[in-house]
Amino acid sequence: MLADDPLGARRESPDDLAPYRAALERLADDPNQHLVVAVREGRVVGTLQLSLDPGFSRRGATRSIIEGVRIHTDERGSGLGTQLIEWAIGESRRQDCQLVQLASDTSRVDAHRFYERLGFTASHVGFKLQL
Amino acid sequence: MLADDPLGARRESPDDLAPYRAALERLADDPNQHLVVAVREGRVVGTLQLSLDPGFSRRGATRSIIEGVRIHTDERGSGLGTQLIEWAIGESRRQDCQLVQLASDTSRVDAHRFYERLGFTASHVGFKLQL
Repeated sequence: MLADDPLGARRESPDDLAPYRAALERLADDPNQHLVVAVREGRVVGTLQLSLDPGFSRRGATRSIIEGVRIHTDERGSGLGTQLIEWAIGESRRQDCQLVQLASDTSRVDAHRFYERLGFTASHVGFKLQL
Repeated sequence: MLADDPLGARRESPDDLAPYRAALERLADDPNQHLVVAVREGRVVGTLQLSLDPGFSRRGATRSIIEGVRIHTDERGSGLGTQLIEWAIGESRRQDCQLVQLASDTSRVDAHRFYERLGFTASHVGFKLQL
Protein backbone atom coordinates (compact mmCIF):
# COMPACT_ATOMS: atom_id res chain seq x y z
CA MET A 1 0.00 0.00 0.00
CA LEU A 2 2.95 2.34 0.67
CA ALA A 3 4.25 1.58 -2.83
CA ASP A 4 0.79 2.01 -4.44
CA ASP A 5 1.17 5.77 -4.50
CA PRO A 6 2.73 8.18 -7.02
CA LEU A 7 5.50 9.15 -4.57
CA GLY A 8 5.78 5.85 -2.71
CA ALA A 9 6.27 3.89 -5.95
CA ARG A 10 9.70 5.53 -6.28
CA ARG A 11 10.91 4.96 -2.74
CA GLU A 12 9.48 1.73 -1.34
CA SER A 13 10.68 -1.86 -1.91
CA PRO A 14 7.75 -4.27 -1.45
CA ASP A 15 9.92 -7.17 -2.66
CA ASP A 16 12.42 -6.72 0.16
CA LEU A 17 10.69 -6.65 3.54
CA ALA A 18 13.82 -6.86 5.71
CA PRO A 19 14.19 -3.06 6.20
CA TYR A 20 10.51 -2.83 7.19
CA ARG A 21 10.87 -5.62 9.77
CA ALA A 22 13.88 -3.83 11.29
CA ALA A 23 11.87 -0.58 11.35
CA LEU A 24 8.95 -2.30 13.13
CA GLU A 25 11.34 -3.37 15.89
CA ARG A 26 12.64 0.20 16.29
CA LEU A 27 9.05 1.49 16.49
CA ALA A 28 8.01 -1.19 19.00
CA ASP A 29 10.96 -0.29 21.25
CA ASP A 30 10.09 3.43 21.35
CA PRO A 31 7.20 4.42 23.68
CA ASN A 32 6.79 7.72 21.78
CA GLN A 33 5.96 5.96 18.50
CA HIS A 34 2.54 4.61 17.53
CA LEU A 35 1.89 2.79 14.26
CA VAL A 36 -1.82 2.40 13.51
CA VAL A 37 -3.03 -0.17 11.00
CA ALA A 38 -6.69 -0.23 9.90
CA VAL A 39 -7.97 -3.68 8.91
CA ARG A 40 -11.28 -4.41 7.20
CA GLU A 41 -12.33 -8.02 6.61
CA GLY A 42 -8.81 -9.27 7.20
CA ARG A 43 -7.21 -6.82 4.75
CA VAL A 44 -4.97 -3.86 5.64
CA VAL A 45 -6.76 -0.74 4.34
CA GLY A 46 -5.02 2.14 6.10
CA THR A 47 -1.93 3.14 8.07
CA LEU A 48 -0.80 6.14 10.07
CA GLN A 49 2.24 6.79 12.24
CA LEU A 50 1.96 9.12 15.24
CA SER A 51 5.17 10.29 16.92
CA LEU A 52 5.24 12.18 20.22
CA ASP A 53 7.96 14.79 20.20
CA PRO A 54 8.78 16.43 23.55
CA GLY A 55 10.19 19.91 22.97
CA PHE A 56 11.63 22.97 24.68
CA SER A 57 10.12 25.92 22.79
CA ARG A 58 6.46 27.01 23.17
CA ARG A 59 6.73 26.69 26.98
CA GLY A 60 8.16 23.19 26.80
CA ALA A 61 5.35 21.92 24.58
CA THR A 62 5.16 18.32 23.47
CA ARG A 63 3.97 18.12 19.87
CA SER A 64 2.77 15.12 17.93
CA ILE A 65 3.73 14.42 14.34
CA ILE A 66 1.52 12.53 11.90
CA GLU A 67 3.40 10.65 9.16
CA GLY A 68 2.95 7.83 6.70
CA VAL A 69 -0.80 8.31 6.14
CA ARG A 70 -1.93 5.82 3.48
CA ILE A 71 -5.46 4.74 2.58
CA HIS A 72 -6.09 1.76 0.27
CA THR A 73 -7.39 2.92 -3.14
CA ASP A 74 -10.63 0.92 -2.58
CA GLU A 75 -11.28 2.88 0.61
CA ARG A 76 -10.77 6.45 -0.62
CA GLY A 77 -13.81 8.60 0.13
CA SER A 78 -15.05 6.12 2.76
CA GLY A 79 -14.23 8.39 5.71
CA LEU A 80 -11.42 6.09 6.87
CA GLY A 81 -8.80 8.85 6.46
CA THR A 82 -10.88 11.19 8.60
CA GLN A 83 -11.27 8.46 11.23
CA LEU A 84 -7.50 7.85 11.34
CA ILE A 85 -6.66 11.58 11.63
CA GLU A 86 -9.36 12.10 14.26
CA TRP A 87 -7.92 9.20 16.24
CA ALA A 88 -4.47 10.82 16.01
CA ILE A 89 -5.81 14.19 17.20
CA GLY A 90 -7.67 12.53 20.11
CA GLU A 91 -4.62 10.49 21.12
CA SER A 92 -2.46 13.65 20.97
CA ARG A 93 -4.87 15.35 23.40
CA ARG A 94 -4.83 12.33 25.72
CA GLN A 95 -1.02 12.50 25.72
CA ASP A 96 -1.13 16.23 26.62
CA CYS A 97 0.31 17.47 23.32
CA GLN A 98 -0.24 21.17 22.60
CA LEU A 99 0.19 20.88 18.85
CA VAL A 100 -0.27 18.33 16.06
CA GLN A 101 1.82 18.78 12.94
CA LEU A 102 2.45 17.09 9.63
CA ALA A 103 4.22 17.81 6.37
CA SER A 104 2.58 16.89 3.07
CA ASP A 105 4.34 16.91 -0.30
CA THR A 106 3.41 20.06 -2.28
CA SER A 107 2.05 17.81 -5.06
CA ARG A 108 -0.65 16.27 -2.84
CA VAL A 109 -3.23 19.02 -3.38
CA ASP A 110 -6.25 16.85 -2.47
CA ALA A 111 -4.59 15.86 0.81
CA HIS A 112 -4.04 19.55 1.65
CA ARG A 113 -7.75 20.31 1.28
CA PHE A 114 -8.49 17.24 3.41
CA TYR A 115 -6.23 18.43 6.25
CA GLU A 116 -7.66 21.95 6.10
CA ARG A 117 -11.20 20.55 6.40
CA LEU A 118 -10.05 18.77 9.57
CA GLY A 119 -8.86 22.05 11.11
CA PHE A 120 -5.18 22.12 10.17
CA THR A 121 -3.56 25.37 9.00
CA ALA A 122 -0.97 25.42 6.21
CA SER A 123 1.21 27.78 8.23
CA HIS A 124 4.67 26.38 7.49
CA VAL A 125 7.07 25.52 4.70
CA GLY A 126 8.37 21.97 5.03
CA PHE A 127 12.04 21.50 4.13
CA LYS A 128 13.73 18.16 3.50
CA LEU A 129 17.31 17.14 2.88
CA GLN A 130 18.06 13.62 1.64
CA LEU A 131 21.21 12.14 3.18
CA MET B 1 16.24 34.05 23.54
CA LEU B 2 13.18 31.98 22.54
CA ALA B 3 10.96 34.93 23.49
CA ASP B 4 13.21 37.47 21.65
CA ASP B 5 11.61 36.64 18.34
CA PRO B 6 8.49 37.94 16.54
CA LEU B 7 6.72 34.59 16.87
CA GLY B 8 8.26 33.46 20.16
CA ALA B 9 7.23 36.69 21.92
CA ARG B 10 3.62 35.54 21.71
CA ARG B 11 4.11 31.99 22.93
CA GLU B 12 6.95 31.84 25.43
CA SER B 13 6.89 32.71 29.16
CA PRO B 14 10.38 33.76 30.31
CA ASP B 15 8.97 34.76 33.73
CA ASP B 16 7.74 31.24 34.46
CA LEU B 17 10.50 28.68 33.98
CA ALA B 18 8.68 25.69 35.52
CA PRO B 19 7.31 24.31 32.21
CA TYR B 20 10.79 24.59 30.65
CA ARG B 21 12.37 22.67 33.56
CA ALA B 22 9.76 19.90 33.16
CA ALA B 23 10.46 19.83 29.40
CA LEU B 24 14.23 19.51 30.01
CA GLU B 25 13.56 16.41 32.11
CA ARG B 26 11.43 14.86 29.35
CA LEU B 27 14.18 15.59 26.80
CA ALA B 28 16.92 14.18 29.05
CA ASP B 29 14.93 10.94 29.50
CA ASP B 30 14.50 10.37 25.76
CA PRO B 31 17.55 8.96 23.92
CA ASN B 32 16.10 10.17 20.58
CA GLN B 33 16.16 13.83 21.64
CA HIS B 34 19.20 16.11 21.51
CA LEU B 35 19.12 19.72 22.71
CA VAL B 36 22.16 21.71 21.60
CA VAL B 37 23.10 24.94 23.33
CA ALA B 38 25.86 27.17 21.91
CA VAL B 39 27.74 29.21 24.53
CA ARG B 40 30.18 32.03 23.80
CA GLU B 41 32.06 33.66 26.68
CA GLY B 42 29.63 32.23 29.24
CA ARG B 43 26.53 33.45 27.40
CA VAL B 44 23.97 31.29 25.59
CA VAL B 45 24.00 32.43 21.95
CA GLY B 46 22.20 29.64 20.09
CA THR B 47 19.96 26.61 20.47
CA LEU B 48 18.76 23.77 18.29
CA GLN B 49 16.73 20.63 19.01
CA LEU B 50 17.36 17.49 16.97
CA SER B 51 14.83 14.63 17.23
CA LEU B 52 15.40 11.19 15.75
CA ASP B 53 12.18 9.77 14.40
CA PRO B 54 12.20 6.08 13.43
CA GLY B 55 9.62 5.42 10.72
CA PHE B 56 8.04 2.75 8.57
CA SER B 57 7.65 4.36 5.14
CA ARG B 58 10.61 5.00 2.75
CA ARG B 59 11.92 1.46 3.44
CA GLY B 60 11.76 1.89 7.21
CA ALA B 61 13.77 5.11 7.12
CA THR B 62 14.70 6.96 10.30
CA ARG B 63 14.43 10.69 9.77
CA SER B 64 15.71 13.51 11.94
CA ILE B 65 13.73 16.64 12.70
CA ILE B 66 15.32 20.01 13.43
CA GLU B 67 13.30 22.31 15.69
CA GLY B 68 13.67 25.32 17.93
CA VAL B 69 16.54 26.95 16.02
CA ARG B 70 17.33 30.27 17.68
CA ILE B 71 20.38 32.49 17.28
CA HIS B 72 21.03 35.44 19.61
CA THR B 73 20.47 38.77 17.81
CA ASP B 74 24.14 39.73 18.45
CA GLU B 75 25.28 36.59 16.62
CA ARG B 76 23.21 36.81 13.45
CA GLY B 77 25.39 36.68 10.36
CA SER B 78 28.28 35.19 12.36
CA GLY B 79 27.97 31.73 10.79
CA LEU B 80 26.73 30.20 14.06
CA GLY B 81 23.39 29.16 12.50
CA THR B 82 25.25 27.39 9.69
CA GLN B 83 27.48 25.67 12.25
CA LEU B 84 24.46 24.45 14.24
CA ILE B 85 22.61 23.13 11.17
CA GLU B 86 25.78 21.49 9.83
CA TRP B 87 26.25 19.78 13.20
CA ALA B 88 22.64 18.54 13.01
CA ILE B 89 23.15 17.17 9.47
CA GLY B 90 26.41 15.45 10.50
CA GLU B 91 24.83 13.94 13.62
CA SER B 92 21.87 12.71 11.52
CA ARG B 93 24.31 10.91 9.19
CA ARG B 94 26.16 9.39 12.16
CA GLN B 95 22.81 8.09 13.47
CA ASP B 96 22.02 6.52 10.05
CA CYS B 97 19.11 8.84 9.22
CA GLN B 98 18.10 8.92 5.55
CA LEU B 99 16.39 12.31 5.71
CA VAL B 100 16.57 15.55 7.69
CA GLN B 101 13.42 17.65 7.86
CA LEU B 102 12.17 20.84 9.43
CA ALA B 103 9.17 23.13 9.20
CA SER B 104 9.63 26.90 9.18
CA ASP B 105 6.81 29.43 9.60
CA THR B 106 5.83 30.90 6.21
CA SER B 107 6.69 34.39 7.55
CA ARG B 108 10.38 33.53 8.11
CA VAL B 109 11.50 34.30 4.55
CA ASP B 110 15.16 34.90 5.46
CA ALA B 111 15.29 31.54 7.25
CA HIS B 112 13.93 29.82 4.13
CA ARG B 113 16.75 31.23 1.97
CA PHE B 114 19.21 30.15 4.66
CA TYR B 115 17.96 26.52 4.63
CA GLU B 116 17.97 26.41 0.83
CA ARG B 117 21.59 27.59 0.79
CA LEU B 118 22.39 24.67 3.11
CA GLY B 119 20.88 22.18 0.62
CA PHE B 120 17.32 21.80 1.92
CA THR B 121 14.41 21.68 -0.55
CA ALA B 122 11.09 23.41 0.21
CA SER B 123 9.19 20.34 -1.02
CA HIS B 124 6.38 20.18 1.56
CA VAL B 125 3.53 22.15 3.05
CA GLY B 126 3.70 22.15 6.84
CA PHE B 127 0.33 21.86 8.61
CA LYS B 128 -0.27 22.60 12.28
CA LEU B 129 -3.27 22.20 14.54
CA GLN B 130 -3.23 23.81 17.98
CA LEU B 131 -4.89 21.66 20.66
